[in-house]
Amino acid sequence: MIAAPRSEQVLALCGGVGGAKLALGLYRVLDRDRLTLVVNTGDDFEHMGLNVSPDIDTVVYTLAGLADPERGWGRAGESWHFMGALRDLAEDTWFNLGDCDLAMHVLRTEWLRCGGSLTAFTARAAGKLGIAARVLPMTDDSVRTIVATEEGELPFQHYFVRLRCEPPVRSIRFQGAETSRLTPELLDVLARPLRAIVICPSNPFLSVDPILAVPELRAALVNQSAPVVAVSPIIGGQAVKGPTAKMMSELGIAVTTHSIAAHYEGLIDGLLIDSTDIADRASVDLPVIATNTLMRSLADRERVAHDVLGFCDTLAQSPVSGLAGAG
Amino acid sequence: MIAAPRSEQVLALCGGVGGAKLALGLYRVLDRDRLTLVVNTGDDFEHMGLNVSPDIDTVVYTLAGLADPERGWGRAGESWHFMGALRDLAEDTWFNLGDCDLAMHVLRTEWLRCGGSLTAFTARAAGKLGIAARVLPMTDDSVRTIVATEEGELPFQHYFVRLRCEPPVRSIRFQGAETSRLTPELLDVLARPLRAIVICPSNPFLSVDPILAVPELRAALVNQSAPVVAVSPIIGGQAVKGPTAKMMSELGIAVTTHSIAAHYEGLIDGLLIDSTDIADRASVDLPVIATNTLMRSLADRERVAHDVLGFCDTLAQSPVSGLAGAG
Repeated sequence: MIAAPRSEQVLALCGGVGGAKLALGLYRVLDRDRLTLVVNTGDDFEHMGLNVSPDIDTVVYTLAGLADPERGWGRAGESWHFMGALRDLAEDTWFNLGDCDLAMHVLRTEWLRCGGSLTAFTARAAGKLGIAARVLPMTDDSVRTIVATEEGELPFQHYFVRLRCEPPVRSIRFQGAETSRLTPELLDVLARPLRAIVICPSNPFLSVDPILAVPELRAALVNQSAPVVAVSPIIGGQAVKGPTAKMMSELGIAVTTHSIAAHYEGLIDGLLIDSTDIADRASVDLPVIATNTLMRSLADRERVAHDVLGFCDTLAQSPVSGLAGAG
Repeated sequence: MIAAPRSEQVLALCGGVGGAKLALGLYRVLDRDRLTLVVNTGDDFEHMGLNVSPDIDTVVYTLAGLADPERGWGRAGESWHFMGALRDLAEDTWFNLGDCDLAMHVLRTEWLRCGGSLTAFTARAAGKLGIAARVLPMTDDSVRTIVATEEGELPFQHYFVRLRCEPPVRSIRFQGAETSRLTPELLDVLARPLRAIVICPSNPFLSVDPILAVPELRAALVNQSAPVVAVSPIIGGQAVKGPTAKMMSELGIAVTTHSIAAHYEGLIDGLLIDSTDIADRASVDLPVIATNTLMRSLADRERVAHDVLGFCDTLAQSPVSGLAGAG
């Protein structure tokens, strides 16, 4: 198959659940080989000797139609017999690994131990599951999100899963990010013109910041001529799911679209916000459109994908600021 | 708990299914802390990056009451969702790993990668599952059974599982055995007098020979004053299960109790044979008793255990050869 011209290519940055919803929408409304997803690996960790990449797996399972729609992670129809046996043999059972999900972790662990890259493994797994979009880790180097809390520094999964985001957060850092490198595969995509760059409505601090912390990646995004649009994860002054709002409060950041715009300042050319946050629009010194960003159904995901792509295309045609339409 | 005096200790050498049946019988008729099982690790292999120890697991699951009684390996009530997911992601799915069984492999792999010994892991797992007997790998060093066949040399599991023992066998060797060392834990048991040493009715060539190929282990067994009795795996000129008879034929060895006695010559002080092979007795220049050695029920296992222990005790009291009773 001849690849589509790069100017048709859309690049989307995403983390786990929230991001994967829009990623699926984009995947469904675009010709399938015109989407490249750059996925956060700051949440990756080694658990019981297995290399677990939660956000990559969420994206892959979501695009393959295998994701559990309720739980927000892992596979639909999953079974837990491994965990049952584990509890008889070990104490350390705080991280749930489903029986089907384990296949991914075991294969990935073997792949990496044999010297293969996470990028190559992910491409292979996505291909096996029939995914035509490129799913690229933000880097093949180890970047680990460390959350400084009132209980000390915690690896991300300990904070997120083991302690259920309970310890108040003081700051976040991305261990290894400074020296992490852009992958050849991602460089290849970024070296050519793109149609649009979308920042999915993932947690900006936990899911998108690690991606932007890869120095060459951030630089390449800033240098791209394509419009960069973020979809705000805030709806009506609340985060849809996950610890975003709680964490923003703990970090002293107002839970507003203005804060999101400020967070991405210098990177984004436009912000897509939820209609319920329309009052915030005046405070954002950027092109903004407002629409219903809550993605409950598959149709919602496709609609938001259409909206953000349309917004990007409009920005590309009218690259002066001040453009604003209401969804 | 104070350990039983070592003179009450029984040591049994065993491989997988056949051996584990008698191991369970011994475990049930002996005070539980008076049994030490030395288990073949020549079948161990790395599969998808996981350290799999089939014989150790068969013994542990059998003693813990978790073994599948029909299949002959793995756990009862096992599920196979991992394998189902694996088939969507990988080609190499010839070795079945059950969802519950995987817990053992994942934990063992992590343990070994962190520098722990197979002996320590096995003791820990057996303890967690409530097993009071010592289950000891024959060595902590890598010994790998290699089967030379008409299709070339094959790692054991490739021969046994992947090719279902189909290629005719020319010879068998145990890679790494020459330099393998006795473990401190096994040395500790062997350094003191034992009540009896039992060679379970496992495949002599595939399951017991690797154990005897550990040089210090064989020497320690020969030096022990305790009687050494083998239970013949032959019943009515056939092997009960597995490739024993087929392999003996291919190696040019008659499928008789005489062959078993000859195989263990210089090591054993007596042979327990099946009543159906009573005609072979005259050809064996060793004390022999004949009994029903087919172990279908739990009562069968306990009865054969009683028989072999009684035989050992008789030999210990009358250490001259020529003793023979009929079971």
